[in-house]
Amino acid sequence: MFKKETYIQRRKLLKEELKSGVLLFLGNDECGLNYEDNTFRYRQDSTFLYFFGLSFAGLSAVIDIDEDKEIVFGDELTIDDIVWMGNQPTLHEKADMIGVRDTRPSASIVGYLHQAVCKGQVIHYLPPYRPEHKLKLMDWLGVLPVHQQGSVAFIRAIVKQRNYKSAEEVAEIEKACNVTADMHLAAMKMLRPGMHEFDVVAEMEAVARRANYEFSFATIATVHGETLHNHTHEHLVREGDLFLIDAGAETEMGYAGDMSSTICVGKKFTERQKQIISIQNAMYDEAVKALKPGVPYRDVHDLSARVMIERMKEIGLMKGNTDDCLESGAFALFYVHGLGHMMGLDVHDMENLGEVWVGYNGQPKSTQFGRKSLRLAIPLQPGFVHTVEPGIYFIPQLIDQWRAEKKFTDFVNYDLAETYKDFGGVRNESDYLITETGSKRLGKVVPKEPEAIEAVR
Amino acid sequence: MFKKETYIQRRKLLKEELKSGVLLFLGNDECGLNYEDNTFRYRQDSTFLYFFGLSFAGLSAVIDIDEDKEIVFGDELTIDDIVWMGNQPTLHEKADMIGVRDTRPSASIVGYLHQAVCKGQVIHYLPPYRPEHKLKLMDWLGVLPVHQQGSVAFIRAIVKQRNYKSAEEVAEIEKACNVTADMHLAAMKMLRPGMHEFDVVAEMEAVARRANYEFSFATIATVHGETLHNHTHEHLVREGDLFLIDAGAETEMGYAGDMSSTICVGKKFTERQKQIISIQNAMYDEAVKALKPGVPYRDVHDLSARVMIERMKEIGLMKGNTDDCLESGAFALFYVHGLGHMMGLDVHDMENLGEVWVGYNGQPKSTQFGRKSLRLAIPLQPGFVHTVEPGIYFIPQLIDQWRAEKKFTDFVNYDLAETYKDFGGVRNESDYLITETGSKRLGKVVPKEPEAIEAVR
Repeated sequence: MFKKETYIQRRKLLKEELKSGVLLFLGNDECGLNYEDNTFRYRQDSTFLYFFGLSFAGLSAVIDIDEDKEIVFGDELTIDDIVWMGNQPTLHEKADMIGVRDTRPSASIVGYLHQAVCKGQVIHYLPPYRPEHKLKLMDWLGVLPVHQQGSVAFIRAIVKQRNYKSAEEVAEIEKACNVTADMHLAAMKMLRPGMHEFDVVAEMEAVARRANYEFSFATIATVHGETLHNHTHEHLVREGDLFLIDAGAETEMGYAGDMSSTICVGKKFTERQKQIISIQNAMYDEAVKALKPGVPYRDVHDLSARVMIERMKEIGLMKGNTDDCLESGAFALFYVHGLGHMMGLDVHDMENLGEVWVGYNGQPKSTQFGRKSLRLAIPLQPGFVHTVEPGIYFIPQLIDQWRAEKKFTDFVNYDLAETYKDFGGVRNESDYLITETGSKRLGKVVPKEPEAIEAVR
Repeated sequence: MFKKETYIQRRKLLKEELKSGVLLFLGNDECGLNYEDNTFRYRQDSTFLYFFGLSFAGLSAVIDIDEDKEIVFGDELTIDDIVWMGNQPTLHEKADMIGVRDTRPSASIVGYLHQAVCKGQVIHYLPPYRPEHKLKLMDWLGVLPVHQQGSVAFIRAIVKQRNYKSAEEVAEIEKACNVTADMHLAAMKMLRPGMHEFDVVAEMEAVARRANYEFSFATIATVHGETLHNHTHEHLVREGDLFLIDAGAETEMGYAGDMSSTICVGKKFTERQKQIISIQNAMYDEAVKALKPGVPYRDVHDLSARVMIERMKEIGLMKGNTDDCLESGAFALFYVHGLGHMMGLDVHDMENLGEVWVGYNGQPKSTQFGRKSLRLAIPLQPGFVHTVEPGIYFIPQLIDQWRAEKKFTDFVNYDLAETYKDFGGVRNESDYLITETGSKRLGKVVPKEPEAIEAVR
C-alpha cells in the first residue's frame, strides 16, 4: 500500500473535479469457483484500490462531497473469522491506513444511500462488471441491471487521474515489468521440442509466484499464436514450431506488467519465420521511435500497419497502393488487433469504465475489423503507461472467410497467404511510459530479434 | 470427459428418481477479476459437469421430464470468437459428445421456461452460489434472490447419485491424489530455513501445472498452521518452525485431490513438536482403522477426538473425565474442525447443495463450536470418497477468549496451553474410498510420521 497521503490526495482531486454528489465505490467480494466458500484468488476492484487502497473482500465506500464525508463500510471479524483466516487489523485500523476516519457496518450503507436519495443528492456509481455489483446496485438503489449504465461524470473524473501515472505508480509498474521479463526469459531458456505448453507455463508462473506476485491476466503460451487469447496449454511443442507467449505479473499492490515474445522451439528460426519476425520487429521499432507527447496513438498504430504493408508487399503477401490498403483495413487480415493499450492497476487499464473514455476521450471508436480492437487512440501525454505490441497472424478461418467473400482482393495475395496457414502468429510486446520528451521502456529487456533469441537459447 | 454413455446414464437415473418436472442446470459463466474480459480461470459448475460434462462458459441445460426432452442452450462461435479464442466444436458437436441432440440458442431458454410455467410444470433449480446465477433465476423465473432456496427434491436426487463414486470417477480422483501427493513431496524435499512461504507455493503449484492440472482450492502453505485457511504466503520460514500445507490438484475433468502435511523447517522436529504430532498421528490412525460401511462418520470424528483427549491428558494439556470432555466439546479448543468431508468434483463435495443433505441426510448439524464444522456425519457406504484430516491447533485468540470466559476449566489446563501459543498447528490428511469391506487410501503415500518426514528431508 502507498502511504496514506497518496489516497487522501487522490480523493481530494476527485472531489475537486466532481464538486457535488455522492460517489459510491463498490469493492469486490470473494467469488466462488464451484461453491461459495471455495474462492478464486481475491482481487479487489482497481478503482477501489486506487482511491481506498484496501485489498479486502466485503468493503464499500462513499465519498459524500455535499456533506464532506468519506466513509468505509465493512464488518469487524468474529472469532470464527479469526480461527479460519487469522488475525487482521480492525476496520478502523484499516481505514486509518488510507486516511479515512469514518467506518460503519456494511448493512448501514443502504440507509445512507436511501437518505441521500431522499435529500435529492445525485448518487454516482460506475458501470458494474461483476454480477455481485449488479445485485448490490439493484438492492441498494433500486436500479435494475439493464439500467445500470454508470455515471459518465464519475468515469471521466477517474480517467482524468488514473490515465496519468505518478512516480510511485511507475516504480510499482516497473517491478511488475521486471518480474514479467523474468517470466519470459525463463521460458526462452527452458523451451525444448517434446515439451508440452503447460511445462513452460508451470515454470513461468513459478517465476512470478517466487516473487509473491500474481498474474495480471491468464498466461498465453502456445504453438498456436494465431489464436490471440489461447488459454489452453495442452499442445505438444515440436521442432520448427513458433511459440508465442503473452504473460504478465501483477505486484502485491495490483499493478500489472504485460509482455509478449515469440520464440523458436528448436535452436534456430527458419528463414520464413525470420522474414515475418523481421517485419514484426520493424513495426515495433518504428512505433517505439514515434512515441512522444502529442502524437495520437491512432497514428502510431497506423504507422505500424503501414510498415507491415510495405514489407509484406516486398515478399508478395500484400499488393496495391499502400495508402489505400491502410485506409481500407485490408491489412487487418494479418494484423487483427490494435498496437497497444493503457496499463496500470488493470492490464487493460480501466477497461470496465469504457475504452471510449480511457483511450478515445469520448470520441467514437472505428467499427472496422482490426481497428475496432485498438484500445488507445488519443494523443500521448507524459504519464501515460501503455503497451506496444504489433502482431502478424495467419488465421486459417479468417483467410478462408475473406477469400470466400472476395474481400480486399486488390490488396491481399490469397494464393500466397494460403501457404502460410500453418505459420501461426508472431507478436512481441513491451511497456512504455510517455515522458516529457519521448518515452521510456519499463523493465528489463526481453530479446525480440531472431539472432538475440537464438543466442539466449 | 467420460464417454457419452456415462452422462446419458446419469441423466436417466436422475429422471427416474424425480419422475416429473423441469430440471434447470445453470452452467457457470466466466468471472472477471478486475474487468469483464480479464477473467479468472474458467471453472464449470460441478453438477453441470456431472450430468452434462461440457466445460464451456455460457451454457445452460434443461431436462424436461414431462416432455421427455434434454436440451443444451448456448450460442455458436462468431468469426471474432474464433480469432480471439481459436476453433471449437459447434454447440451441436459438443452436445453430441454427451448424448444430447437438442441444442438451442441461449436466449430461447427464457421462453422455454416461461411456457413450462404456463403449462403448470414445476421448475426445479439448485441454490445459487454465484451472483450470476441469482441474476439468471431472477430474469428467467422472476424469483428474487432472497427467495431462491432451490428444490430439495432436486438436491436429494443429485446427492443420491454424486455421493457414490463410480470406478471411473475413483480412477480420476486417484489421478488428482497422485499429483496432490507429488505437490506435498516436492515441498517436503525443498523446504529450507530462510525461504519464504511463497517459494514453496511456487514449486508446489508448478508440480500441478506440469501435469496440466489446476488446484482444487487455494493452496495453504504456512508457518502459521494455527490459522486454518491461511491464504497469504509472505512469511519468512525459520529453523524450528512447523510448516503446514493443505493443497490439492484438480484434474482436467474437474476431480479433486486434497491432502495436508506438517513438516519441520529444519532437519529435525523438536521433542515438543514430535509429541503433538504423535497425538495427531494417533488420531489419524485410529480414525482410518474405523473406516468401513455402516459406521457413522460422526462416530469416527468423536473417536479421533477421544484419542486426542486421552493423549492430551497424558501430557497435561487436558484433564477430567474423557466422556464428559468429549460430550462438552471442550476438546474443540485444540481440534476446531471436523475429521473430514466428502470429495469428488468439488473438494468439499456438493457443499453448495447444503452439507445437511450431503453429509447429514437431512438431519440437523450440531451447533457446538468444533462439531458444527464437521461436514460428514452419516454412516459410511461403499463408494463414498472423503478426507481424513484430524488437526491440533494452538490459536492464541481462542485460548485467550475461552480462558477469559472461564470455559471448560474442568477439562483444559490453560496455564500449560499458554506455553503453546507459539506452537502453530498440526494436520495431516489423506483421501479414502469406502469399499465393501473397509476403506482404500487413494493416491501415493505422503509421510506423516516425524521420523519418515525427517528421512525425506
